Amino acid sequence: MPPLTPPSAPGAPSSPSTPTIDLNADLGEGFGRWALTDDDALLDVVTSANVACGFHAGDPATMRRVCERAAERGVAIGAQVSYRDLAGFGRRAMDVPADELAAEVAYQVGALDVFARAAGSRVAYVKPHGALYNRAVRDEEQAAAVVEGVRLASTASGDPLPVLGLPGSALHRAAAGAGFVTVAEAFADRAYRPDGTLVPRTEPGAVVHDPDEVVARSVAVATGGGVVAADGTTLTLAAGSLCVHGDTPGAAALAARVRAALDEAGVDVRSFV
Amino acid sequence: MPPLTPPSAPGAPSSPSTPTIDLNADLGEGFGRWALTDDDALLDVVTSANVACGFHAGDPATMRRVCERAAERGVAIGAQVSYRDLAGFGRRAMDVPADELAAEVAYQVGALDVFARAAGSRVAYVKPHGALYNRAVRDEEQAAAVVEGVRLASTASGDPLPVLGLPGSALHRAAAGAGFVTVAEAFADRAYRPDGTLVPRTEPGAVVHDPDEVVARSVAVATGGGVVAADGTTLTLAAGSLCVHGDTPGAAALAARVRAALDEAGVDVRSFV
Amino acid sequence: MPPLTPPSAPGAPSSPSTPTIDLNADLGEGFGRWALTDDDALLDVVTSANVACGFHAGDPATMRRVCERAAERGVAIGAQVSYRDLAGFGRRAMDVPADELAAEVAYQVGALDVFARAAGSRVAYVKPHGALYNRAVRDEEQAAAVVEGVRLASTASGDPLPVLGLPGSALHRAAAGAGFVTVAEAFADRAYRPDGTLVPRTEPGAVVHDPDEVVARSVAVATGGGVVAADGTTLTLAAGSLCVHGDTPGAAALAARVRAALDEAGVDVRSFV
Amino acid sequence: MPPLTPPSAPGAPSSPSTPTIDLNADLGEGFGRWALTDDDALLDVVTSANVACGFHAGDPATMRRVCERAAERGVAIGAQVSYRDLAGFGRRAMDVPADELAAEVAYQVGALDVFARAAGSRVAYVKPHGALYNRAVRDEEQAAAVVEGVRLASTASGDPLPVLGLPGSALHRAAAGAGFVTVAEAFADRAYRPDGTLVPRTEPGAVVHDPDEVVARSVAVATGGGVVAADGTTLTLAAGSLCVHGDTPGAAALAARVRAALDEAGVDVRSFV
Repeated sequence: MPPLTPPSAPGAPSSPSTPTIDLNADLGEGFGRWALTDDDALLDVVTSANVACGFHAGDPATMRRVCERAAERGVAIGAQVSYRDLAGFGRRAMDVPADELAAEVAYQVGALDVFARAAGSRVAYVKPHGALYNRAVRDEEQAAAVVEGVRLASTASGDPLPVLGLPGSALHRAAAGAGFVTVAEAFADRAYRPDGTLVPRTEPGAVVHDPDEVVARSVAVATGGGVVAADGTTLTLAAGSLCVHGDTPGAAALAARVRAALDEAGVDVRSFV
Repeated sequence: MPPLTPPSAPGAPSSPSTPTIDLNADLGEGFGRWALTDDDALLDVVTSANVACGFHAGDPATMRRVCERAAERGVAIGAQVSYRDLAGFGRRAMDVPADELAAEVAYQVGALDVFARAAGSRVAYVKPHGALYNRAVRDEEQAAAVVEGVRLASTASGDPLPVLGLPGSALHRAAAGAGFVTVAEAFADRAYRPDGTLVPRTEPGAVVHDPDEVVARSVAVATGGGVVAADGTTLTLAAGSLCVHGDTPGAAALAARVRAALDEAGVDVRSFV
Repeated sequence: MPPLTPPSAPGAPSSPSTPTIDLNADLGEGFGRWALTDDDALLDVVTSANVACGFHAGDPATMRRVCERAAERGVAIGAQVSYRDLAGFGRRAMDVPADELAAEVAYQVGALDVFARAAGSRVAYVKPHGALYNRAVRDEEQAAAVVEGVRLASTASGDPLPVLGLPGSALHRAAAGAGFVTVAEAFADRAYRPDGTLVPRTEPGAVVHDPDEVVARSVAVATGGGVVAADGTTLTLAAGSLCVHGDTPGAAALAARVRAALDEAGVDVRSFV
Repeated sequence: MPPLTPPSAPGAPSSPSTPTIDLNADLGEGFGRWALTDDDALLDVVTSANVACGFHAGDPATMRRVCERAAERGVAIGAQVSYRDLAGFGRRAMDVPADELAAEVAYQVGALDVFARAAGSRVAYVKPHGALYNRAVRDEEQAAAVVEGVRLASTASGDPLPVLGLPGSALHRAAAGAGFVTVAEAFADRAYRPDGTLVPRTEPGAVVHDPDEVVARSVAVATGGGVVAADGTTLTLAAGSLCVHGDTPGAAALAARVRAALDEAGVDVRSFV
């Protein structure tokens, strides 16, 4: 994977001296009787909502409700597209042929868009979920298929959709190559390697559990301060968006702390769209 | 059920003396490996394609392909919305709460619309499938929920979507009450009662199997001639659309015969949108 | 619905003077990433576990784990069979043709049985879930279809499976008519009508929310004391099993209180198999 | 992959001089409204039926019917286990964690076994389907997980289940290592490499389309005659079972020709169980 590149669309800064960042979280990840994410609490904190579209989570009634509440709060709505895998929550990589994958991505964006638009908003970007996110970091064919799905949905809506993802990923290269804006995201609760890639979850220390450290790293990323990588070197993450997680106990509270710390540090927290 | 009422939108006649009718069929009713409808053959015959949206049939790649080919031929694209029931092909009535059903309908319309619009067309109407179609003939609550789904999708697209269905049905009353255009359809291969309702499939003689009779009845409906009801009385069906079936062997050939007979009889076969 | 009849298999009492009852709860009602029931806590309390079989909830890995833990604790394993409806958690009644429903029931029992037997136990009874449970109270055709499914599974295992359900229900009549043991269950947290049927959830007062009252009613049912019906008359519920709920916050704690009160009252809490 | 090894259980020959082989085909691969395989025609030809268990195809009513008809004809019933992937017909490889995959395999075997036993037969072997079959040729972890599923199902039924698959595959090594009988299958309509592995479908000449050649190769395999590999060398396939395909037009007719040719050649066509 090539070295980190600056995000194409870091968001327009309020002024030359004001640091700016988007805060995104996965929302609506229940299904029918099952709830997972504390959607209302997260919608008070984030500026971009990655809404599940029914393939790994997200029933239509939940999608509608989350879109309505996001629209009320001015939170940007993104389509969190996934493999078709409710049983595995989209965490099981699948060898989906490119034409099927492209159509599945477009299907999900279109299904979410109806709720976003009915609520007076629209799907403003696309972010792959789980195994598809990880696969599209390196798999050129699937990355291209996701981008083809984004292209279909963009053609349909008449508006090119930005792609939120890992900087330097195959997905971002394919999206940029097809003329789509790419937005780089950083993870405050994940350890990084010196080259800017994530330490895999299977390795020790991959996840930062200390809330204070997560908050400190969030502010560091947003203000351009360096983040210490797993080997001790300092790494600058040029991110247009910061991802906070919402599917674990205490996640919403930690996200609120991150938001408060960013506000306090004078960061202009705003969506990139 | 009240007596038949004329359709709200029978299609604009080419001239005062030219009979006009739409010809609709269910398409894209395969799923993944499984095929059912002869989509290409039917698209050469019909003027409106009721495309399955993934809940009773219709995988995204099939939806895309059918939309592309329909758009190429100028065939109008309708969302054939269904209960979520792949195992039962949407033929098992379900007590779905109104808010879930409305959201499920909107979800399906949105998902299909992305392919229709990417192909340069758009979802131009909604028609419920199978058990939902039958249930919405009399069930006021589900009829209202379907219309709420149509309203959501219409708000999203900025364009009110006509509702294709049985004249006099609860669905048509609810749709008309909410300000949507309703289009009445007639079935050339189904026996009618004197009050204009269909003879249930569970009763003998419900389905007209003789191709010649199906063709003759089609022309009679389109030209305003009477159709003989099950009790021998003559019935005038004021229909804006004629439904031909596509999921049985020989169906596409019969549909082609119907189309040819309509053309020959001087009927202007055109979509109602 | 006919008046209450004594259960066919109230469980063999330890002695003529010792009241005996089974305690059952729904378990394993998560799916993949989503959890719902506190299975471990409930398995320490109940004597019969109604395990979800994958149609409304219950992925295979969860089914395996619950069966293993139930077997370790000597808790009887029952198949909690449902309509095929993950999105609706099996709470949406469906018009499933009898032959499909019978096969779906048998499928679920067989799938669960593999985990029960691999753990050294076996599926010992069948209890329908949610909308199927309610539908089979009055719908003779679906009740017969469920029993046909039980018959298939019983033939397969060489062991007739008891049917746990509402006394006086169509399901129990069909099961008894086909030669299967029926076990009547009572609900300590539900209000009853004088005729022994449940007050529907849609009516006020249908659910008993006061934990103390739930505990008192549990002991009364188990010891043959009368329960006060919604109209004030005293009702004797002849139940072989008492159902405690496990899918709400505090449910496991309440179930533990019920169990402790039963033990303290000298009730022999044991499975009916 | 190691070179071909003789199957562990080629079936007991009728006499030292009589060649023996099993003939297997995939059956019951429809789902609800959709049909695929000509089950009745194939059941008149094969001696082993690989029945779909609901994860890539196969609704419960179909599973029941196929088991009843197989039992009537004395055809052995095998569980054709798959990834959970109806939309992809089980042809999309998935990174399923080992514990989930093992449980999914056991679930499918158990579900099918209820219909097999209710019909007076039993699940007599396991054969993975599609992408799982191919993945388990080389993927040691998934091969082991499938075998763990077979172990669970075997423990449940009290009878070790043979594993039908590609000789020399990781699956066969894992199965043999765990003490299960492995049965090697050969494909009369697939081209082989000199090392006994199949030419991938993505390469030209992978599939033998000429019916006469398929028949000739079938007889050659069954009688111990050599098969010409893709490079012209003669290859001896020591197979206990011959797989005929049933999901393409004319497949049942070709299978019948293969069977007739084997009978005529004096081959004792019989199941390996």
